[in-house]
Amino acid sequence: MTAPLTGLGLVLDDIATAEVERLEALHVPLAEAIRELVDAAILTTTDEETVRSATTTVREVTARLRREQVPGTAGVHHNADGRAWNWGNAAVGLRNAAAPPLVMATRTDGTAYGEATLGAAHEGPPGLAHGGVVALLLDHIMGVTASRYERVTFTGTLTLRFLRGTPLGHVRVDARIDSAEGRKVVVVGSLSDAEGVTAEAEGVFVVPRWAL
Amino acid sequence: MTAPLTGLGLVLDDIATAEVERLEALHVPLAEAIRELVDAAILTTTDEETVRSATTTVREVTARLRREQVPGTAGVHHNADGRAWNWGNAAVGLRNAAAPPLVMATRTDGTAYGEATLGAAHEGPPGLAHGGVVALLLDHIMGVTASRYERVTFTGTLTLRFLRGTPLGHVRVDARIDSAEGRKVVVVGSLSDAEGVTAEAEGVFVVPRWAL
Repeated sequence: MTAPLTGLGLVLDDIATAEVERLEALHVPLAEAIRELVDAAILTTTDEETVRSATTTVREVTARLRREQVPGTAGVHHNADGRAWNWGNAAVGLRNAAAPPLVMATRTDGTAYGEATLGAAHEGPPGLAHGGVVALLLDHIMGVTASRYERVTFTGTLTLRFLRGTPLGHVRVDARIDSAEGRKVVVVGSLSDAEGVTAEAEGVFVVPRWAL
Repeated sequence: MTAPLTGLGLVLDDIATAEVERLEALHVPLAEAIRELVDAAILTTTDEETVRSATTTVREVTARLRREQVPGTAGVHHNADGRAWNWGNAAVGLRNAAAPPLVMATRTDGTAYGEATLGAAHEGPPGLAHGGVVALLLDHIMGVTASRYERVTFTGTLTLRFLRGTPLGHVRVDARIDSAEGRKVVVVGSLSDAEGVTAEAEGVFVVPRWAL
């Protein structure tokens, strides 16, 4: 997300790209470690004393991290070089241990794809991904596809068709612009496992009048 | 979820309700502590040494919890008393620090409502809930409403209309059965903040042939 999106509450920060990358290299391992902790806390069958001691230790770590923190939320930032970071994002946030995270790439032809590994924290029906997690991954990639990192779009409607259950594990999402006319951009997307598509989606995204 | 749902991979466990409740009382504080840690890890601006030390400590806690754990995922369980638990669920799982968690109640008239508090880990656009998190909360409550805890249903389609951005903070979701004919149950739902509805949804849920 580069400068044209600034109107949406994005913050232009005077931080050098090298410093953004130093901070990412420092914080990503912490988020990854917490993601493992979330998984372990769901699955553990260890004794009461170990669970209580873990709870106390986690609270101590949190208190140390909170000594200095930004107010509110992480927000979406970019610098003058066009380097952007949205570390708290619920789908892709690299510092958000609650995000799967979805790892995305866009192609020059306007399509996008992404990958994620879903585990115990993403379960709905036994052994299957929660339908809402499927929706989260599709909503995110389709919104990015609509905006193409260069214009503001809001999701108007999103229609999801669940073809079959999505087993936990590795999934991929694909999206492309189906049509774009005036302020309306229609994006289609799908989520697949190794056997093929498990869910399809169509989204109507709207470019606000002030962004035309 | 009681016995009639067993066909879906639900596990009937020979665990007394009192023991289920003891385990919940032990593990819920750990999940709540990790939820705070997830938030702190997104927001912290503390020094490099503190972040590295937190990473190491989190890995140690995880290793202790993993010494004994269930294989695979948490699944959905119930006992002979009809007490059910789905601790890992992505929307409502009490032991899942990545779940908001949604707290739900169903009413005898077939409607349901729920509440959640969304924070830094649920952000999409700056200061607003991610559309996919809105979808997660609606998908979950609408699925439960369709199944009424007494029949198996699968989500067929889910259509979401985003009326405006949902500010982070306290939200509520409401759902009701709109129509039910043969194997098809139509559920409508909405998500609201203190100012009113921010997103509406309609879902078509299907009762599998074998469950009729």
